[in-house]
Amino acid sequence: MSLTMYSASVPVFVRMLGNMLNWLDKAQLHADERKFDSTNYLGLRLAPDMLPFSRQIQIATDGAKGCVARLSGTEVPKWDDTEATLAQLRARVLKTLDFVQGFSAEEFEGSESREIVLPTRQGDPLRFDGETYLKHFVLPNFYFHATTTYALLRHSGVQLGKRDYLGAA
Amino acid sequence: MSLTMYSASVPVFVRMLGNMLNWLDKAQLHADERKFDSTNYLGLRLAPDMLPFSRQIQIATDGAKGCVARLSGTEVPKWDDTEATLAQLRARVLKTLDFVQGFSAEEFEGSESREIVLPTRQGDPLRFDGETYLKHFVLPNFYFHATTTYALLRHSGVQLGKRDYLGAA
Repeated sequence: MSLTMYSASVPVFVRMLGNMLNWLDKAQLHADERKFDSTNYLGLRLAPDMLPFSRQIQIATDGAKGCVARLSGTEVPKWDDTEATLAQLRARVLKTLDFVQGFSAEEFEGSESREIVLPTRQGDPLRFDGETYLKHFVLPNFYFHATTTYALLRHSGVQLGKRDYLGAA
Repeated sequence: MSLTMYSASVPVFVRMLGNMLNWLDKAQLHADERKFDSTNYLGLRLAPDMLPFSRQIQIATDGAKGCVARLSGTEVPKWDDTEATLAQLRARVLKTLDFVQGFSAEEFEGSESREIVLPTRQGDPLRFDGETYLKHFVLPNFYFHATTTYALLRHSGVQLGKRDYLGAA
């Protein structure tokens, strides 16, 4: 089997989103044990000019959703960023898992050279071929927001280690 | 062009290691402006039981070096973790850039199914096929340590943004 655009994206998202579910479960457990409201996690930031915990998960899941939709040439569904509890963030991760698993390898064929156009708030859209989009935009961003989520939980004292970050080997 | 084990690894490392050089330059500039010794960055941690800044860069670079050596079936060079200044960490990133750029796409052919054996300190080695090793071990780890490096600098007030994290689009 050769590496493909599908094999380099969908299984990567599935693994990491599954890991995130485990982190969120451990975060809830930590809150229960320490008797604080787990909603408190949602506003945590690593720096005052960085996005909060809730946005890290929303952006990571948007990244996965947008990638599989764009590479397969289907419309990117719009999900409102309304999650206000840890349980709702968990549901969003689950919804993303369902969504990315709904695509087949065949739908990604030829997506290396598919033109991807991303609107930006500043004006001119970003344009990539599919391969550049996946390797240099989607995956670094996805791992950025996953790692920042993990770091915020570690910073909060949640019992997580590198094995939780990577998931089952 | 199809996605390959080479195209999914070497250019990814080259882009991100280049970005890291830029972060380190901005970190030095920040230290100069605020008149503190940039060596102070090296011991920073996001949590007391996480590895410090210097180790984040050492492990990220080790990840890139080990990946290209193992996927091409060559011996992994051993680099001592002796960096004691920001300039020395910068030199390590440059050395890694040189190293990963010394391999050709041909040397990675068939590496999807190459058996990769990683010794562990705990006992039994980790075993992967090359594709699993790249997608589920090397890249998540590499981005973990890159993002943690970035987060420590952001936490320190260094003027960095998402564009610095991703590099030239």
